[in-house]
Amino acid sequence: MTTAPTPPSSVETLAVIGVGLIGGSIALAARQTGAAKRVIGVGRNADRLEQARLAGVIDVGVKSLTDIADADFVVVCTPVDRIVADVLAATAVVRPAAILTDAGSVKGTICRQLEQQGVSNFVGSHPLAGSEKGGFEHARADLFQNRLCVVTPVESSIADHVATIEQFWRQLGMRTERLTPERHDQILALTSHLPHLTASALAALIDDTALPFASSGFRDTTRVAGGDAQLWAAILSQNAAAMQRALTQLTQRLDRFSEVLAHGDTMQLMHLLVEGQLRREAFERRDEGPGRGGEGPETRD
Amino acid sequence: MTTAPTPPSSVETLAVIGVGLIGGSIALAARQTGAAKRVIGVGRNADRLEQARLAGVIDVGVKSLTDIADADFVVVCTPVDRIVADVLAATAVVRPAAILTDAGSVKGTICRQLEQQGVSNFVGSHPLAGSEKGGFEHARADLFQNRLCVVTPVESSIADHVATIEQFWRQLGMRTERLTPERHDQILALTSHLPHLTASALAALIDDTALPFASSGFRDTTRVAGGDAQLWAAILSQNAAAMQRALTQLTQRLDRFSEVLAHGDTMQLMHLLVEGQLRREAFERRDEGPGRGGEGPETRD
Repeated sequence: MTTAPTPPSSVETLAVIGVGLIGGSIALAARQTGAAKRVIGVGRNADRLEQARLAGVIDVGVKSLTDIADADFVVVCTPVDRIVADVLAATAVVRPAAILTDAGSVKGTICRQLEQQGVSNFVGSHPLAGSEKGGFEHARADLFQNRLCVVTPVESSIADHVATIEQFWRQLGMRTERLTPERHDQILALTSHLPHLTASALAALIDDTALPFASSGFRDTTRVAGGDAQLWAAILSQNAAAMQRALTQLTQRLDRFSEVLAHGDTMQLMHLLVEGQLRREAFERRDEGPGRGGEGPETRD
Repeated sequence: MTTAPTPPSSVETLAVIGVGLIGGSIALAARQTGAAKRVIGVGRNADRLEQARLAGVIDVGVKSLTDIADADFVVVCTPVDRIVADVLAATAVVRPAAILTDAGSVKGTICRQLEQQGVSNFVGSHPLAGSEKGGFEHARADLFQNRLCVVTPVESSIADHVATIEQFWRQLGMRTERLTPERHDQILALTSHLPHLTASALAALIDDTALPFASSGFRDTTRVAGGDAQLWAAILSQNAAAMQRALTQLTQRLDRFSEVLAHGDTMQLMHLLVEGQLRREAFERRDEGPGRGGEGPETRD
């Protein structure tokens, strides 16, 4: 752990709801960077919480939200279809001055439902980091180092809250960007959710007669199809509208390829492939630079 | 190099036409395993051939096919749209008893055109190996170790020729499987060509506003979109019919996802994702085993 000056707005008591890969990494990173002095982990399994505590991921593990009444800052790291309920339950317990955020891969439904419920001390976040591993055993304090966190205030969000949340993520080593919840969902549909769905579709086309002949192109392109189906069903469902638009864009492009193949137009085919190649190269250049993006967290139990 | 007993049917003189990544690796592997006693490399650039010779990839480099008259075994490793012409030119030069094969990623057009031309000493091959790097500088003698080579005889192929070709690939460390040219193209459309095209399409959807938010899911799923567009345009064009069928299968599955999202049917969505997850896991189990597949070679100059 690097010796850092006491951060000006270090959180006294951080509550992490859902101590999986992401929640566990937030807890670890907050303890190690001094972003929080004390970390309470909230979960449903007392044994797992105790293991997390023994592993140094959290200071104390609790099963009941009533035990986070003293929390100044709450990060909800449960699966996307539980976040609204968990935020509502937490706001009923913590002080009005407490600030809440989440780590969910979809923002629109979460932020707008909480806004409609009159929750004024929550602003959504989506830290783009993670790995395909699940569970706090794989938590790493450096998971967020130099990764990007999207913060998604709504129109009624309080500026100080947004700033405090951004400050928190930066203390864990992240860069931050602001997007509206809707713009976030639209972009992530294209950069993350559609690739996952497409990888799954490609994998499903390969029966046992074709399997022996699948190789490195298949390996790379379908890697993410191995992801947790329940987790991804929840993410894709929550982002259904943006997913359908993204799917339309993809199928239109695939239809264009099909036309061009039917016409035997190799030049036009090459032109289409070059467009993809150039965007891939743009990504690789960005990736090699100091500012890297990151995968949406796969929140797990 | 392992000390191997002299292979029973080691080739006296091997000619490799096109000394790129694949041709270069074949040359290196043949020299190192003793599969061939002498390797002639044929290319269009005298400097490159000399560099390949100095690097120990080939014994001698020539620009003219007349210089391979003594070859017993010829492997054509040029891009798919040049293979037929190169095989025809080589058959005009070598002895009738010589055997020819290729390394092209598409087999139907090549094998059927040569069959129609009355070429009886050629049988198509597709060694599933390679990397995204091009050029003989990246050639490796172990590129084929434990990889799969598909050999695609036609009905009129001579059994001894097929056996000799399979023996050659096995001496380079490969396992072999036989498929008809058409079955090969159908399978590779699904396992390799469609994933490449789809990766390209996914990458092309990401404009500069979305690029900063692309991350590990995008990185894996679009990796192969960085491939050589000219090379892949030729491959996809040559396999146009099978590609269109593969594209139809994919878009049908994507449309199914779209319906399910529109109906908010999260259970059915999960079911679809599980199908992809199971096939991906089947691939990973196969991959961990001793028998691995391999990527179609990306033949380059």
